[in-house]
Amino acid sequence: MFDDEGSTGRSDGGPAKPGSQSALRMRNQLRLTDQLLRGGPATQAELSRLTGLSTATVSNIVKSMQQAGLVTLTATTSSGRRAHSVRYIGDSSIAAGIDFGRSHLRVVLANRSYQVVAERQIPLPLGHDATAGIAAATQLLEELLAEKGIARSMLMGAGAGIPGPIDRRTGKVIQGAILPEWVGINLHERLKSALDLPVFIENDANLGALAQITWGAYAAVPNLVFVKIGTGIGAGLIVNGDLYSGSIGVTGEIGHLTINESGLICRCGNRGCLETIASTATMIQLLSRGRDHPVDAEDIVGHAKSGDSTTLRVLEDAGTAVGRALANISNLMSPDVIVIGGPLASLGELLLAPIRRGLLRHAVPVVGENTTLATSSLGPRSEALGAVSLVFQHGPSLHNM
Amino acid sequence: MFDDEGSTGRSDGGPAKPGSQSALRMRNQLRLTDQLLRGGPATQAELSRLTGLSTATVSNIVKSMQQAGLVTLTATTSSGRRAHSVRYIGDSSIAAGIDFGRSHLRVVLANRSYQVVAERQIPLPLGHDATAGIAAATQLLEELLAEKGIARSMLMGAGAGIPGPIDRRTGKVIQGAILPEWVGINLHERLKSALDLPVFIENDANLGALAQITWGAYAAVPNLVFVKIGTGIGAGLIVNGDLYSGSIGVTGEIGHLTINESGLICRCGNRGCLETIASTATMIQLLSRGRDHPVDAEDIVGHAKSGDSTTLRVLEDAGTAVGRALANISNLMSPDVIVIGGPLASLGELLLAPIRRGLLRHAVPVVGENTTLATSSLGPRSEALGAVSLVFQHGPSLHNM
Repeated sequence: MFDDEGSTGRSDGGPAKPGSQSALRMRNQLRLTDQLLRGGPATQAELSRLTGLSTATVSNIVKSMQQAGLVTLTATTSSGRRAHSVRYIGDSSIAAGIDFGRSHLRVVLANRSYQVVAERQIPLPLGHDATAGIAAATQLLEELLAEKGIARSMLMGAGAGIPGPIDRRTGKVIQGAILPEWVGINLHERLKSALDLPVFIENDANLGALAQITWGAYAAVPNLVFVKIGTGIGAGLIVNGDLYSGSIGVTGEIGHLTINESGLICRCGNRGCLETIASTATMIQLLSRGRDHPVDAEDIVGHAKSGDSTTLRVLEDAGTAVGRALANISNLMSPDVIVIGGPLASLGELLLAPIRRGLLRHAVPVVGENTTLATSSLGPRSEALGAVSLVFQHGPSLHNM
Repeated sequence: MFDDEGSTGRSDGGPAKPGSQSALRMRNQLRLTDQLLRGGPATQAELSRLTGLSTATVSNIVKSMQQAGLVTLTATTSSGRRAHSVRYIGDSSIAAGIDFGRSHLRVVLANRSYQVVAERQIPLPLGHDATAGIAAATQLLEELLAEKGIARSMLMGAGAGIPGPIDRRTGKVIQGAILPEWVGINLHERLKSALDLPVFIENDANLGALAQITWGAYAAVPNLVFVKIGTGIGAGLIVNGDLYSGSIGVTGEIGHLTINESGLICRCGNRGCLETIASTATMIQLLSRGRDHPVDAEDIVGHAKSGDSTTLRVLEDAGTAVGRALANISNLMSPDVIVIGGPLASLGELLLAPIRRGLLRHAVPVVGENTTLATSSLGPRSEALGAVSLVFQHGPSLHNM
């Protein structure tokens, strides 16, 4: 859509105008800046792909922006080759990312060059309601601002994620959330009035997906699925480079794929959903029988790493079922990359191996073979980081240019 | 992204220029024309939604284009209200749409105002190879041109669909096609050299989806799934208003969703895939037992309409299974509309009722309730019409503006 400075073959869409060469240059620089603001740091090759500008044009613009102090370059590797990651530093705005969990709250503050400037996680009691959660988030945000000496006026907005579906038409948390006490709450309204900031809300798995293409290793991947395996199981979809929200905002509900028509009753009312087989809640239940103290997700990771055969068997069953669900997604959407997140992601290949078996067994061969499977490298921060990206994507920016 | 003539609040992206008012007007008209060329006829309200232009701007442009003889307006209804469908007539280019079936070939010629100017379907022997199919298509195309007195120079290209996956990276038909004799063929190369025209290739279900938003009733629907129930079962996805092709071009393969882990072996090598339960091939097999002559898809429609209980039972089982697969798609993508096509679509509610039961049973409630289910109104023409749209979307047009 946007033309290169060097090219003359294609029209840039507008009628030819005198002085259009410098206007074109300015437009190209705006486009590159916009990409860095919305998409986070990226290599020059990725920037070229993402903006449609030639590598020569990207290189010229980056050079002049670097001289003007607008970007920095840091060494990195991309597809195994050495490259430089371009990072925007020309703007001191700060965004807050809030991750509401079932029993935790995390707040992250980050600047537009996608650097975290403050971060803290605190525990919240199981079964806390939205009023308690929002009050805790407001307080934690103010504490972080005070500790770091950040003026409130620098905050351009807050993004927040919750483990449950949100109806984008109303901003309300709807049935099926892992935080049942929050159902029916208009989280957007409530948080906006508590924080007195522009607020952007998303489901946690969607934020995890967004984090992968903004903070993670997949800046230039057009089609990506992020799967969060936790108390519930959900997926976030990146389609053609953007977060996909469907019509009502409820997408990626793979936890309720029927795996076994005569299986256990699920909290959604159906039988044998993926969650009844592969959520951490199910694994914890299976692995806690006969023990004095129930295990937790951390124990599952520890026991699996030390080779406990019962834990490995539970992981095998859960992973295979997740893989089968991912095969369905892959047959439907053929994503480039599927990233697994949640508390078990640190298991790496121990978790990926059974998932891969399930995927390859149930996917159309050419699709299964072309889907890359990986665990998230962002750990428990991914939701909060994705919430920060949400602010940078929706807040006042150049992206309507 | 594009600004209104009347608005002054937002920037149109480029730096301010003298005379930008008339440039803006020209740009808005180009944008509207582009939408009509790529998206087919639409009401003014739909055009406003699709282009982002205000209804007043659309109305002004349409009026001046009508005076210039570039568009015609025909009365229609939209969401139950009376409206006018705007149709572009300012260009005499013709596109060919070719639908290669397992035992038929259909060729359609249409102009840029989305009017069919010639059309014919002929039978082809079961098991015919690609050489025979391409030769028949070439001959039929030439015959139609000759009969209608259309100069070959008016043909801007040909679109073609086949019932099977195509690897978009290579243009080759890949394993899993309903035309096994065509697997490994580079259809794009072969057809291009036979027709001596620009050629665009797609899977038939993808073309069916494209036809729904260009020729069908769903011009302004952003997220739509078209499901073709035939010898195989496949889906085409419209995501954010465009045909979605994934990374390798193989998407919508819902025929291989595992419904019954210990079910029949499928042609893909897995067990209990949707196709082993709900394809017309399976239904024909079930309903032909004990008969002297096997039934065909037309018989299924006839028998079901006359209330034959065995046929209705087979449709019930197949429909419920299809509904379950659609629930998975809906939980994942939350489409606005799902359209059912293929030879059974003329059954209407007889086919939709069991599908709806399966959908509502297995979908997350808010998603199931918000998904509209319908049968295609385009009949056996949908693939060829979608192939025409493919040419108008990819052929030389204004769409890079």
